[in-house]
Amino acid sequence: MKNFLDLADLGRDQVVDLLALADRLRERPEPTALAGRVLGLLFFNPSLRSMTSMRVAMARLGGESVAVTPGAGSWQLETRSGVTMTGAAAEHIREAIPVLDSYCDALGVRAFAEGRDLAADLGERTFTAIASLCRNPLINLESSANHPCQALADWKTLDDLSVPRRGRFVLAWANHPRALPLAVPAAVSQMAALRGMEVVVLRPEGYALPETVMEKARRAAAASGGSVTETDDRDAALTGAHVVYAKEWGSTAHYGDAEADARARAGLADWMVRESWFAAAAAGCHLMHCLPVRRNVAIADEVLDGPRSRVLQQAHNRLVVQMAVLYRLLGGNGRRH
Amino acid sequence: MKNFLDLADLGRDQVVDLLALADRLRERPEPTALAGRVLGLLFFNPSLRSMTSMRVAMARLGGESVAVTPGAGSWQLETRSGVTMTGAAAEHIREAIPVLDSYCDALGVRAFAEGRDLAADLGERTFTAIASLCRNPLINLESSANHPCQALADWKTLDDLSVPRRGRFVLAWANHPRALPLAVPAAVSQMAALRGMEVVVLRPEGYALPETVMEKARRAAAASGGSVTETDDRDAALTGAHVVYAKEWGSTAHYGDAEADARARAGLADWMVRESWFAAAAAGCHLMHCLPVRRNVAIADEVLDGPRSRVLQQAHNRLVVQMAVLYRLLGGNGRRH
Amino acid sequence: MKNFLDLADLGRDQVVDLLALADRLRERPEPTALAGRVLGLLFFNPSLRSMTSMRVAMARLGGESVAVTPGAGSWQLETRSGVTMTGAAAEHIREAIPVLDSYCDALGVRAFAEGRDLAADLGERTFTAIASLCRNPLINLESSANHPCQALADWKTLDDLSVPRRGRFVLAWANHPRALPLAVPAAVSQMAALRGMEVVVLRPEGYALPETVMEKARRAAAASGGSVTETDDRDAALTGAHVVYAKEWGSTAHYGDAEADARARAGLADWMVRESWFAAAAAGCHLMHCLPVRRNVAIADEVLDGPRSRVLQQAHNRLVVQMAVLYRLLGGNGRRH
Repeated sequence: MKNFLDLADLGRDQVVDLLALADRLRERPEPTALAGRVLGLLFFNPSLRSMTSMRVAMARLGGESVAVTPGAGSWQLETRSGVTMTGAAAEHIREAIPVLDSYCDALGVRAFAEGRDLAADLGERTFTAIASLCRNPLINLESSANHPCQALADWKTLDDLSVPRRGRFVLAWANHPRALPLAVPAAVSQMAALRGMEVVVLRPEGYALPETVMEKARRAAAASGGSVTETDDRDAALTGAHVVYAKEWGSTAHYGDAEADARARAGLADWMVRESWFAAAAAGCHLMHCLPVRRNVAIADEVLDGPRSRVLQQAHNRLVVQMAVLYRLLGGNGRRH
Repeated sequence: MKNFLDLADLGRDQVVDLLALADRLRERPEPTALAGRVLGLLFFNPSLRSMTSMRVAMARLGGESVAVTPGAGSWQLETRSGVTMTGAAAEHIREAIPVLDSYCDALGVRAFAEGRDLAADLGERTFTAIASLCRNPLINLESSANHPCQALADWKTLDDLSVPRRGRFVLAWANHPRALPLAVPAAVSQMAALRGMEVVVLRPEGYALPETVMEKARRAAAASGGSVTETDDRDAALTGAHVVYAKEWGSTAHYGDAEADARARAGLADWMVRESWFAAAAAGCHLMHCLPVRRNVAIADEVLDGPRSRVLQQAHNRLVVQMAVLYRLLGGNGRRH
Repeated sequence: MKNFLDLADLGRDQVVDLLALADRLRERPEPTALAGRVLGLLFFNPSLRSMTSMRVAMARLGGESVAVTPGAGSWQLETRSGVTMTGAAAEHIREAIPVLDSYCDALGVRAFAEGRDLAADLGERTFTAIASLCRNPLINLESSANHPCQALADWKTLDDLSVPRRGRFVLAWANHPRALPLAVPAAVSQMAALRGMEVVVLRPEGYALPETVMEKARRAAAASGGSVTETDDRDAALTGAHVVYAKEWGSTAHYGDAEADARARAGLADWMVRESWFAAAAAGCHLMHCLPVRRNVAIADEVLDGPRSRVLQQAHNRLVVQMAVLYRLLGGNGRRH
């Protein structure tokens, strides 16, 4: 494993193997495994869990981490090729990334979608450019259309909860004041499909996941014996669900048009997950969400504070699985520098 | 000791014990005592000493620390219960605190008073909510009405200076461009009372400390043989003082009303500590202040740069006593994760 | 070596010795040399390389670092003496620096020029004040008129590239949207002169380096057998060059006057380094730049992406030489605290 950019690069067996490593490191900690190793963290966008869990993961394995945040202590970085840099960005990633890469043993990078051009965002232009500039391992900590660390943590949570491999996994669109990126729904639908589940994408009209996202999930399902469908029929979708994974995302019909998106969601306030959503679900149906979540907008207090919420367990599993990712990328072959 | 939230939770003997531990760790450093331990630091408000001294304290004991700063690299957090989160805050402390708590072995949190509703701020609504969400130890790094690490460091400074246990401790109001919170005057008056001192709160009219603050200090004095009085008579207060502890705070008569507070302090420019204030003080009277201090507004250069200033010693003692707090909360019982 | 503030404090032999130490630490790493040591980093201005390379340097030697960034998690600091602090700054460096110094084993500080008064900036008022407040070692991470870590890294890069000691080193002014400080041109011209090179400062009219900067470089040249001249004749300057070191700086003729500076550079767009600049240079002439660089404003893509660019090697050498600086300042004599 050279990088950790997409669960699709690993396939089912390697994911299962990585989760076994995560369990092993929990049972038999290796507090000096990464002694002398340094992880660089470059966050173009804000973070609570991703930044903290990566830093703690390095610390729990005996390594160090160093964070760079353009706009908070560092300057803006240009990502486009060939531009004349007279704007706000003082430095180009063509310099910044190789420099950080040369200081550190691995990099973790967060770079959200720009939210203007759907094809460009799905094409992962920025992250592909960053990856091409790294010699050392690179970890995707949320790109424009992926979030493999979240997906891996969620897979582990499903395993921890003994959710059946063929169980019904409903990825349910939820309301939000703004149009959010597609990274988590894309990563999570693919993850559940790769795990072999019966994936149902439940979303209102105008919020269908892009065809490339659906197709990628279907390919994963085909390889693992799962299935992927979508619907705007909430009752049908939720009937028999083992897991409801709530997630906010922007309208794909109005991608990049904030006003049209706002009009589209004006009538969607009832797409807030309530306890009543679980009436026809399987017994013990779990509520999942990647966080951060806006309470009483996307999910009601009654659900988040009730017995079916697994959001804290998911967040803790970020730490658990990332230790395995770092160990696999950096461990076991001595110091480089 | 489960948490470190208020000197009142400890009482006099436990404080004395903690200060003895601080001295022991200075004389016989234990640079690996907290190896493998991780402290999370969540700062809702800016800091120089608190953040830095906590991070260095962990480093000096062999541990690690990870900081989260809403508004600088992370998003705003909601603290109120039951709200519909359509505002600026992207996440609620009901998620953020348990998540950080689950990553780290202890948390240190700074959350200043809102400065609108005096009763609400004195009631420590936010900090009480945060404490109820933590399973691991929690350290108060300045809440709306308390700052126990500062108070503990100041106690140590008084001991280091051999200030008599029954000495006269004048907490003197000082001028500032804005209304500052009550956390330090509340914590320090209580500390000096608990140490057994003759505490005099010197402040102009309109700046009396709230009755609940005074009552808490009087209870501490009653238990330790000290006393607590207040006055606006500067000459009377300063006569025979062993320590003048200067501190700025907002008008309690106009709490939450910035304009009325500004009018009230317009005539108070002479409440800047000058060398002349010490004319009738005890020989060698000390000047203390928790920092940051606005020079030539709250305290004149002549005093801060003169021989009676102890402000740097106080600041250094933040590091010294916090090492003891961390050692007591985290030390001696092996790794948890 | 007590501090690392200026290559002129060291002289040629001590620089050569420090670079030998850097090579030794690369060949025979000492990953626990600075165990238990803590470096404080105070950055008044943004950074990518300086902050990250210092943190990684400490980590690679087993030490820790703690950063303070006024304006991002901490408040503004006052640097002037004797002022009445009613402005934005909440704390004076007369308190902040001794406090941080007392927490840490060494400090690294960045404080750019104010860009208003040339004599004041060249006089290093702020940095001299900071240095006078430190008991522990202090490292200059770019002051108003110096950047010794960059200069030291660049010397090492010249050595790594086997550039002749007497080679022709052209410090070439390059365009930028704004007037940038003189720290790098001052440090780099002095460095190349101290190395014994034939230094040519190439700049358009109105951008001559200040006489004090030129005089300092000439003194260094006199001690090392080099030379320092300046010209606005680009063809003459570049003929036979072994190194072109591109750097942007503000007009010294219009120092502190942003509008006049903007007018002056309106006609200077062709002061962007292109491949054609190297037509009459020595074979294999190197392009150097300290970064960050604005592509296609200061230097064209064709040069930065071509075979003569050494900018990434220079940036990596920041880490390499700073490890030697830290080792020399902090190493080999046990823990202080």
